Amino acid sequence: MRALEVKEPWGVDQLNLVERDVPTPGPGQVLVRMKAISLNYRDLLMVGGVYGRGPSQGGAVTPFSDACGVVEAVGPGVTRVAVGDRVSTLFFQNWVSGPPNLAKLSSALGFPVPGAGAELQVFSQEGVSRVPDFLTDQQVATLPCAALTAWRGLFVDARLEPGDTVVLQGTGGVSIFGLQFAKAAGLRTIITSSSNEKLERAKALGADHTVNYRETPEWSEPVRAVTNGVGADFVMEVGGAGTIQQTLRAIKIGGHIAIIGVVAGGSEGINPAVLIGNSAKMQGLSVGSRDMFEAMCRVIDLCKIVPVVDKVFPWTEARAAFESMRGGEHFGKIVLTF
Amino acid sequence: MRALEVKEPWGVDQLNLVERDVPTPGPGQVLVRMKAISLNYRDLLMVGGVYGRGPSQGGAVTPFSDACGVVEAVGPGVTRVAVGDRVSTLFFQNWVSGPPNLAKLSSALGFPVPGAGAELQVFSQEGVSRVPDFLTDQQVATLPCAALTAWRGLFVDARLEPGDTVVLQGTGGVSIFGLQFAKAAGLRTIITSSSNEKLERAKALGADHTVNYRETPEWSEPVRAVTNGVGADFVMEVGGAGTIQQTLRAIKIGGHIAIIGVVAGGSEGINPAVLIGNSAKMQGLSVGSRDMFEAMCRVIDLCKIVPVVDKVFPWTEARAAFESMRGGEHFGKIVLTF
Amino acid sequence: MRALEVKEPWGVDQLNLVERDVPTPGPGQVLVRMKAISLNYRDLLMVGGVYGRGPSQGGAVTPFSDACGVVEAVGPGVTRVAVGDRVSTLFFQNWVSGPPNLAKLSSALGFPVPGAGAELQVFSQEGVSRVPDFLTDQQVATLPCAALTAWRGLFVDARLEPGDTVVLQGTGGVSIFGLQFAKAAGLRTIITSSSNEKLERAKALGADHTVNYRETPEWSEPVRAVTNGVGADFVMEVGGAGTIQQTLRAIKIGGHIAIIGVVAGGSEGINPAVLIGNSAKMQGLSVGSRDMFEAMCRVIDLCKIVPVVDKVFPWTEARAAFESMRGGEHFGKIVLTF
Amino acid sequence: MRALEVKEPWGVDQLNLVERDVPTPGPGQVLVRMKAISLNYRDLLMVGGVYGRGPSQGGAVTPFSDACGVVEAVGPGVTRVAVGDRVSTLFFQNWVSGPPNLAKLSSALGFPVPGAGAELQVFSQEGVSRVPDFLTDQQVATLPCAALTAWRGLFVDARLEPGDTVVLQGTGGVSIFGLQFAKAAGLRTIITSSSNEKLERAKALGADHTVNYRETPEWSEPVRAVTNGVGADFVMEVGGAGTIQQTLRAIKIGGHIAIIGVVAGGSEGINPAVLIGNSAKMQGLSVGSRDMFEAMCRVIDLCKIVPVVDKVFPWTEARAAFESMRGGEHFGKIVLTF
Repeated sequence: MRALEVKEPWGVDQLNLVERDVPTPGPGQVLVRMKAISLNYRDLLMVGGVYGRGPSQGGAVTPFSDACGVVEAVGPGVTRVAVGDRVSTLFFQNWVSGPPNLAKLSSALGFPVPGAGAELQVFSQEGVSRVPDFLTDQQVATLPCAALTAWRGLFVDARLEPGDTVVLQGTGGVSIFGLQFAKAAGLRTIITSSSNEKLERAKALGADHTVNYRETPEWSEPVRAVTNGVGADFVMEVGGAGTIQQTLRAIKIGGHIAIIGVVAGGSEGINPAVLIGNSAKMQGLSVGSRDMFEAMCRVIDLCKIVPVVDKVFPWTEARAAFESMRGGEHFGKIVLTF
Repeated sequence: MRALEVKEPWGVDQLNLVERDVPTPGPGQVLVRMKAISLNYRDLLMVGGVYGRGPSQGGAVTPFSDACGVVEAVGPGVTRVAVGDRVSTLFFQNWVSGPPNLAKLSSALGFPVPGAGAELQVFSQEGVSRVPDFLTDQQVATLPCAALTAWRGLFVDARLEPGDTVVLQGTGGVSIFGLQFAKAAGLRTIITSSSNEKLERAKALGADHTVNYRETPEWSEPVRAVTNGVGADFVMEVGGAGTIQQTLRAIKIGGHIAIIGVVAGGSEGINPAVLIGNSAKMQGLSVGSRDMFEAMCRVIDLCKIVPVVDKVFPWTEARAAFESMRGGEHFGKIVLTF
Repeated sequence: MRALEVKEPWGVDQLNLVERDVPTPGPGQVLVRMKAISLNYRDLLMVGGVYGRGPSQGGAVTPFSDACGVVEAVGPGVTRVAVGDRVSTLFFQNWVSGPPNLAKLSSALGFPVPGAGAELQVFSQEGVSRVPDFLTDQQVATLPCAALTAWRGLFVDARLEPGDTVVLQGTGGVSIFGLQFAKAAGLRTIITSSSNEKLERAKALGADHTVNYRETPEWSEPVRAVTNGVGADFVMEVGGAGTIQQTLRAIKIGGHIAIIGVVAGGSEGINPAVLIGNSAKMQGLSVGSRDMFEAMCRVIDLCKIVPVVDKVFPWTEARAAFESMRGGEHFGKIVLTF
Repeated sequence: MRALEVKEPWGVDQLNLVERDVPTPGPGQVLVRMKAISLNYRDLLMVGGVYGRGPSQGGAVTPFSDACGVVEAVGPGVTRVAVGDRVSTLFFQNWVSGPPNLAKLSSALGFPVPGAGAELQVFSQEGVSRVPDFLTDQQVATLPCAALTAWRGLFVDARLEPGDTVVLQGTGGVSIFGLQFAKAAGLRTIITSSSNEKLERAKALGADHTVNYRETPEWSEPVRAVTNGVGADFVMEVGGAGTIQQTLRAIKIGGHIAIIGVVAGGSEGINPAVLIGNSAKMQGLSVGSRDMFEAMCRVIDLCKIVPVVDKVFPWTEARAAFESMRGGEHFGKIVLTF
């Protein structure tokens, strides 16, 4: 069977298909035949060598945390799933429940745990979950990282209540999931983008208000306007030049700013003292636990939330998919199929 | 101007219209011209003398906590509202913010504070709030008690998250508001009734599942079935023979049972030890604060939730309205108009 | 090696020492040599056959959830502990983190999982934790059930803050731990007992107020008195005739009543509607997770909280220890040594 | 009677005693005879003209939010206090309960509301609270700002539980109160200072660990060491060159960083993305509500926590007191007496 691998000197053009033996699931493990995979910006960094050599496979890295597949075989003692079950991978293979700690956060799929970029891959039974039937394989593959990041920010960390106002920045995977979840939960949604066409698509997904931040660089002003001057209860801060300053002007007294994703690296520095006057909270987050994933799947199933798959490539053309992601023109998620 | 009053020997047939001078608003007070009022079961008890003599008006009681009106005049120092504003009364006149305490809970409108059953009535400016424009006066009048009780149970006390499952018992005011709020918030809803016709109306309002408890007295069974055996995250317990036993069988491990309303008085006793095995929580509640009311109005406005007004009477026929309530055949709220 | 076993026709006098082979730890398992064990009321019920036949060992039951021992050997893949480590057993062998669910609560030690009543016993590595050095083996053995129950009630479920007032009923294991934890956390403590001598011992442990409920059956009155009429923020309800009625009179508006332990079975019924007026919360609980256990050990270590060991028996005289428990005259915990 | 006033061109040397008429308390107001006052860094900024002209008194500013006094007279409708009661002022005159909002935060004493720097001053009855008897007037005067800031950070915003580890930076008023409250609540405390002598005094107040940040600029290392590498659950960030970088290295995964006080203004910028990896939370805060103040007084009374008064001046020598504060050599609070 074939797998994707990248090693020094790293780079998208170093991502190669290699032949491997079919692995055998050990005690508590499952063998999964991959059906679809989705890309995250983190995979692009990984392929670029930002995380360094992998701790196994002779230093090579097999990327991808997000996959949908079917259980092909199970090892001894497996009870969570059965052969034939369709499953999603989980971003953190060891974060089942409760708050994060170092051990839980050290089990991310792709790096350091070898990722889902292969026709067949072995996982711990604890590292996969069954998923709603109504979703296609491609749609399932979008959930493990981006969707769960949005979910945790809104409902685990910030504990928003219906009628609260949230700001989503841009139309990447996390923001679009954030928009869909917020809508399902009775929240008022404001989304920003540099493209009016994307804002139209966001409106069709239920955005209550849209702001083109090219046309309105001071986008905190319309946010204040639609909240009667009070400000937003929640901003999903994805970073990029200058966004944090507007976020700080847009946030309500006591509001919650979720700092997410690797792109936030682009933010300029802020003085923490700016948080004093308005009692605002700023919390970083990176994906979530299996309990959170399964809670998220319940609302996806109940409200029939359909993930937005923007572009699809055969998995053997992963290089082209990464180039497309680098272009940054997507709305929602980029997916590979098997 | 005219007002409603009841005194010893109490009873619906003792509820009379009396002539009173138009009151003058003092410092921090507002004079409100009533447009509509809604009835609560508590008003029926009050008129029946259950709460005893009122602490003012020579012992007479003017019922009704729930009203919509227009500000006719304001006293010195009033800043929250202006003449001409349409407002709702607040159930607890002194519970603005934070958790309840004795002083806050001792300011309920109707009893001990003289109620809204009059053409003109004076309130503290702290005891009224502006309301969403899209609602009719009659719809506004349904909000102060029943809607806020449902809101607080679901989102303040229980802090449910989208995808959770809630059970609403019967089709009285609190349960119907609970159904509407739960739907707007992305919760799975199960509603019970003894009438298939009412269950059909509930379905039209968005109930995901319905159970006729006459036909299925063990209604905890379908609740467990639709939750894959897990049970409901939340039950709004309104009381009545035998419901609490089914509630205890329907609730999830760690779930929340909200005990509400005066009708709960009908429940048989339970042994608190039954809560040990499943870590279930049981919390009594009675309406909520102004902060909660205003948060609730935000989601009503955002999601355009339309309160269900079942029957309407002229306010001068309040006796007939009470008789109708006593019949118990309503679905949603009974309203008086001026 | 020897182990304790009981089977039909059940009863303390059926508890026998049997000879067994030394078990070999499998993957992820550890073999522990027992040093001390503590008794819980639940063990008495178990020995009496209340839980029925065990699911293994031919239906025989080996009781005891609470033990201190030393790791004698480890199976493949064990990383949490090493040979020679002193460990405590955990009440729920599979409840590591997060909220409870059916799978987690179905892993209680003693029943259905064979208990610690043996010279050597095999556990999952997930089912034991290292413990503070300053405690003796006997003291460690008191922690898994009673101490964790008190901890969870006070700090996980009720989330009390310093200066809050708590009521502890009686001087059994849970109440005495509750007293010690509450004291360390800056809470005001009120403890009840029928014995003035025990109340004196409780005072020596730091109780702020004591009430003899024989002399003052209406013990809610002194609780109200010392809280300026406000009532207690928290009551640990252990059951027994009439206590719940006093608890309901003693609790503050919005207060938390923790329903614990099997003894609560003795409570008479209450009408849930009594909770409405004061927004009180009543939550059942049964021990807690490993995360909670380890958090509890941090404060035990920091504040050097010394568990109260009341009586000690050789483990071969477990029958006598159970008889002593049945007498109910203990203050704190009854312990067996090896 | 005399009062302190400062106006343009601002500055400590412009702070003058002026003669004023004794004010008469209006409806709901109380007249308080001042006994003691404590200084906050904010008063120094205020006197320096940083906040600009006051909104009353012809633009002059009367500083000081923190005072202890005795009620000399009451206006109509006052029920919270009586003539002769000893009271503390409250920092926010209108923040009684619940979360902060703009109206509540706009009622700070000193600015914009004329402050306590006068022999007699009128306050709303809502803006004063009775205080524990065992404290001296000088000790009471230290509570409104610094103590409440520490309290809110630890127990309202961060909701710490016993056994958690907190870091206090420096030995100013907030940090010393934080140390005392944390100790009373069963928290592990680590305090930093540039002075070994001050660290000794902190140890005498119960600090579990001390770090001289001159000698150990990488003070996050000892914090990690005493927490077995896990990091602190909470850091009270008071700002100053470089502290935030160490704070970010010292904080635990999921930990809480409270950003407090005006001195935090000295911090360099940070990139919010640094919070992502460890899910850390950063929350600004500024004092708290009356409910929080009264909860804090309960634990002060229960645990007999004695505020640390460092230096005392007659109120007529307020200029010298400000010069002393500017020197920054205090440990705890600087107080003025009447």
